[in-house]
Amino acid sequence: MLHSFGSDNHSGVAPQILDAIIKANSDFAVAYGEDEITKSATLLFKKQLGDNAEAFFVFNGTGANIVALKAMTNSYNAILCPDSAHINSDECAAPEKMTGCKLLPIKTTDGKVTVEDVKKEFKGIGNQHHAQAKVLSISQPTELGTLYTPKEIKELAELMHQNNCYLHIDGSRISNASASLNMPVKSFTADLGVDALSFGGTKNGLLIGEAVVFFKKELAENFLYIRKQAAQLFSKNRFIAAQFEAYLSGGLNLKLAGHSNSMAKYLESELKSISQVRISRPVETNVVFAYLPKDLCAKLQERHCFYIWDEDTIEVRWMCSFNTRKEDIDKFVSDIKLLV
Amino acid sequence: MLHSFGSDNHSGVAPQILDAIIKANSDFAVAYGEDEITKSATLLFKKQLGDNAEAFFVFNGTGANIVALKAMTNSYNAILCPDSAHINSDECAAPEKMTGCKLLPIKTTDGKVTVEDVKKEFKGIGNQHHAQAKVLSISQPTELGTLYTPKEIKELAELMHQNNCYLHIDGSRISNASASLNMPVKSFTADLGVDALSFGGTKNGLLIGEAVVFFKKELAENFLYIRKQAAQLFSKNRFIAAQFEAYLSGGLNLKLAGHSNSMAKYLESELKSISQVRISRPVETNVVFAYLPKDLCAKLQERHCFYIWDEDTIEVRWMCSFNTRKEDIDKFVSDIKLLV
Amino acid sequence: MLHSFGSDNHSGVAPQILDAIIKANSDFAVAYGEDEITKSATLLFKKQLGDNAEAFFVFNGTGANIVALKAMTNSYNAILCPDSAHINSDECAAPEKMTGCKLLPIKTTDGKVTVEDVKKEFKGIGNQHHAQAKVLSISQPTELGTLYTPKEIKELAELMHQNNCYLHIDGSRISNASASLNMPVKSFTADLGVDALSFGGTKNGLLIGEAVVFFKKELAENFLYIRKQAAQLFSKNRFIAAQFEAYLSGGLNLKLAGHSNSMAKYLESELKSISQVRISRPVETNVVFAYLPKDLCAKLQERHCFYIWDEDTIEVRWMCSFNTRKEDIDKFVSDIKLLV
Amino acid sequence: MLHSFGSDNHSGVAPQILDAIIKANSDFAVAYGEDEITKSATLLFKKQLGDNAEAFFVFNGTGANIVALKAMTNSYNAILCPDSAHINSDECAAPEKMTGCKLLPIKTTDGKVTVEDVKKEFKGIGNQHHAQAKVLSISQPTELGTLYTPKEIKELAELMHQNNCYLHIDGSRISNASASLNMPVKSFTADLGVDALSFGGTKNGLLIGEAVVFFKKELAENFLYIRKQAAQLFSKNRFIAAQFEAYLSGGLNLKLAGHSNSMAKYLESELKSISQVRISRPVETNVVFAYLPKDLCAKLQERHCFYIWDEDTIEVRWMCSFNTRKEDIDKFVSDIKLLV
Repeated sequence: MLHSFGSDNHSGVAPQILDAIIKANSDFAVAYGEDEITKSATLLFKKQLGDNAEAFFVFNGTGANIVALKAMTNSYNAILCPDSAHINSDECAAPEKMTGCKLLPIKTTDGKVTVEDVKKEFKGIGNQHHAQAKVLSISQPTELGTLYTPKEIKELAELMHQNNCYLHIDGSRISNASASLNMPVKSFTADLGVDALSFGGTKNGLLIGEAVVFFKKELAENFLYIRKQAAQLFSKNRFIAAQFEAYLSGGLNLKLAGHSNSMAKYLESELKSISQVRISRPVETNVVFAYLPKDLCAKLQERHCFYIWDEDTIEVRWMCSFNTRKEDIDKFVSDIKLLV
Repeated sequence: MLHSFGSDNHSGVAPQILDAIIKANSDFAVAYGEDEITKSATLLFKKQLGDNAEAFFVFNGTGANIVALKAMTNSYNAILCPDSAHINSDECAAPEKMTGCKLLPIKTTDGKVTVEDVKKEFKGIGNQHHAQAKVLSISQPTELGTLYTPKEIKELAELMHQNNCYLHIDGSRISNASASLNMPVKSFTADLGVDALSFGGTKNGLLIGEAVVFFKKELAENFLYIRKQAAQLFSKNRFIAAQFEAYLSGGLNLKLAGHSNSMAKYLESELKSISQVRISRPVETNVVFAYLPKDLCAKLQERHCFYIWDEDTIEVRWMCSFNTRKEDIDKFVSDIKLLV
Repeated sequence: MLHSFGSDNHSGVAPQILDAIIKANSDFAVAYGEDEITKSATLLFKKQLGDNAEAFFVFNGTGANIVALKAMTNSYNAILCPDSAHINSDECAAPEKMTGCKLLPIKTTDGKVTVEDVKKEFKGIGNQHHAQAKVLSISQPTELGTLYTPKEIKELAELMHQNNCYLHIDGSRISNASASLNMPVKSFTADLGVDALSFGGTKNGLLIGEAVVFFKKELAENFLYIRKQAAQLFSKNRFIAAQFEAYLSGGLNLKLAGHSNSMAKYLESELKSISQVRISRPVETNVVFAYLPKDLCAKLQERHCFYIWDEDTIEVRWMCSFNTRKEDIDKFVSDIKLLV
Repeated sequence: MLHSFGSDNHSGVAPQILDAIIKANSDFAVAYGEDEITKSATLLFKKQLGDNAEAFFVFNGTGANIVALKAMTNSYNAILCPDSAHINSDECAAPEKMTGCKLLPIKTTDGKVTVEDVKKEFKGIGNQHHAQAKVLSISQPTELGTLYTPKEIKELAELMHQNNCYLHIDGSRISNASASLNMPVKSFTADLGVDALSFGGTKNGLLIGEAVVFFKKELAENFLYIRKQAAQLFSKNRFIAAQFEAYLSGGLNLKLAGHSNSMAKYLESELKSISQVRISRPVETNVVFAYLPKDLCAKLQERHCFYIWDEDTIEVRWMCSFNTRKEDIDKFVSDIKLLV
């Protein structure tokens, strides 16, 4: 298959990650996360995200989100999120099944919720008939590739804490946020009061693996059981841990994410001259959204893999990956030019 | 870490499997199991297990078991199993959480349930106060390394079907059973009426991955949603599929399993001359159980990794792996001889 | 406590219902719904709602809704409903907990969803990442006291069936709908293709009790287990059944509901002359909604029990009950007049 | 129907209870437990069970048990109980569905677990693969009519607390225990360290209703939401509260239970002269168990309602109720004498 703009999980494994796996395979190791590599990768998280950061490895993004949410809720709680959130739109009711909670999606246009939006959802607190708001889950970057500013995150965290609630970040592309903001992950999560973070890897060059990171001790306390019961505990855990160790070392995660971000920027700039393609959202990370004429869209999909985000408006999504090359963009843009 | 007798998941990745992963990494691929490698690996399952076999890849053994059981039950059902079953003893109530069902563990001495055992549990059928038996889940080989004969499996399948129930096999080590019985997996599962199989890989040389295989169309029908909701759907699924493709090709799975079985047999034979070590169970697959003097056990654990199966009787478990070498056994046995 | 406009469940037990309870108490009876009164009350449902109607008694409205929904869904399904639905707004995530499903609330202004509204929610069908729509649950009358026309119900039922889905009616006040439409319940439920009905009693003069009625055999098949597992099976079931037998005999349910409907109409007409009170919704059953000046609202709440429906607009809700008397309305209206 | 020995829930409503219902019906009342009768009945529980006692009304025994257990557990916990426990044998996996927990049934002969029994189940504590023991749920009296001594309860409570666990009592017949022990309920629950109690009513003359009583503040804290989400919150709650107020006033509950206990004793004494009937268990509350010849059992069941407890041994169960009369026993015994 040619380069795919379909998703950053269409890409493969970064060579440094593959090397780490191969290296981790030299030996026997205790299972279920009690091995040395897991220990050292866990410490690396502490080093980068702060001493309070308790990291736990899991298999995939949906898994990371649902076990994190389970640790923060009782079944009578409500989980607030933007309506575009992955947990709301793309996880086949996994959060509801795992937690028993109600999801309260908040209408947004850019994937970002505001303090005012969230405040409106704090109704029925103390009323036994209503699911009790307990977590706000936001994505950084959002599903639309946009970014919360540190100030916005801080305000949301404060709002949640004032209401005895938690702030969770779905960071399946957190390294893209970090690269784009040019700030270490810690400075826009732990430092701002974020309580839990799904720290993604698979979409940025890992073969497999995500981490759940808690910044509050109480959330980590019984998490081993939650993870196990959710079937998110890996026996040969060293093979996920080794990937994360390589990923977080020497800034590899930022290098890979920075590259895919820059490819999206490059794609954006190359498209600007094509009047039939209208960029529909600010390009802040590794994705470009655009409106296409229906006809052009259909023809382009014959040649390239990408998805239509909104069938009504023919808004399409083009994702760049750690291994997207300048030539891939050039070929794509030239194909568009041929077609218009 | 030296060779570990702790578990076959302490071992690493077989080189042929690692090669398959590396090869699968050459390109972009559609995510979530719609790629070409997944298709061809799925077909390979059909080829080996029969046209009715519908295989779905998942992350781990607990995951395989709970999504398989979920597909076979409604929440008011009961799931029968031997009391030593992994689903009963080692999955932190994951089956209960996923399915809502009651587990009805059946007392056994050798890990195997009989038709008579199971019949006794068919009580309260049609009585609204009782969870309604729907699945019998057995392990082949059992947690104790023992094997059901094909005749026993056939009779259990018939019993279940007569009662409008299903037979599930937890086959986390199914290839070890196949190698030991010297029969293809199909001939002691699909051909005998087994309805669903958790087909293991991780314990026999895969980096990661298991498959759920259904032999009844009705069970596969809506399984995609069950797997997704259970957070067992892998985005970069080709990397599990590629492993299974290599694993099932040219009899690799049997070669690896046959080796670990033979290492267990070799260990058994070498131990026979040591009177302080009493083999406690028939060695039929890749595990040796033995009673040890308490003192010897403690000293041996200082030098080698293995687990005590029963603290009361000091029965220990020694597992062999695909990469256990004759020298590892020799070293282990000579250490025992030194200590006695 | 004086007359309450707070809710129709602030009222007590109708004398005919209490008599039925007293009469049912003359003797011993088999428990758990196998008694004679339960049998005859169940038959009465068949007589009134059609031979396909299978009725099961439960404790309360939330109970009725969640066991009905559980019978119609698997955990990966989505349940569509108007955003004002009781299951969405007032049941503390009980439907999510019981079913594991996602609720998809549809924005409405009058509590009623249209075929067009519902069609828009049929997205992601067949897509493993999305909860699969399976049930539309509407309320008749709605939470806002409005009524679906038979034609509207028929079209919604057809739409659902075309999409291999079910239509459920939350009929906690179904007798008020029947009295207002001047049609037997059957003619706007079973006859139009409705698949399941929560048939209310408690809000219209019963001491306790609701019924779940299925019009499709497949839904009733294993319902006994669902009800029991949900803790909605009553041991002394005759005492709910006897109430329903009295309730459905000689048109008592319609008599009681008709009275409360007419009291709402009377209240509406008496209020028309008071300019400070603006009726906000059509009065079609036993409830009157109105906008009040904030000040007037506060003062009136000191004297009478009622609830504010919308704090932002000071829209209040006044419910009439089977035992609301003309004098109660007159007193209430005269108090308003005094206060304005 | 004649007198039934089938169960104490075959009996009806005690006249004093019915009177209380009728009296509670004189008026309007706020719903969902915020009415005056609920307040005063709740206070009565405090008065009788201690200031720490927080009582909440629910519909039925299964409901009481599952919401109490839900308040004491997280889904990864295990709930220990005797194998004969109602929660294990007669609630169609409702506890598993509600809590997600594993039930760990303990083999008993007399329905009572000992400190030694329970200690054996404390395995795998701190091991992520094992459901973590959190609650011991015992029945007082047991399903076999036997009673724990205060000393036994105290020791079990201490054991549980030492292990950071709770002790729950399923007291569906707690008043029978109280009458038999000749001790107030408080003295063998709250005073001994019991953490939660399902306080039964329906089986001893109530029309409907049970109470969940917590003796630890932390358990009551968010219980309103748990009860609501479990569909165990009654709108017209005054009608359950009024029954309990009458039930706990003037020792009515003990009077009713004492009577049914004495009827069981009378039945036992009358049976002693009949050699074909062998009393099989100590008669400590309101039930008599006996072995019958198969033939006699069949013939007797033609004339009287009762259930076979154990089909293999033809052990039968005869329950007495608050309204069992001496004549009912005499008639029953004389029928037996005729048949032998």
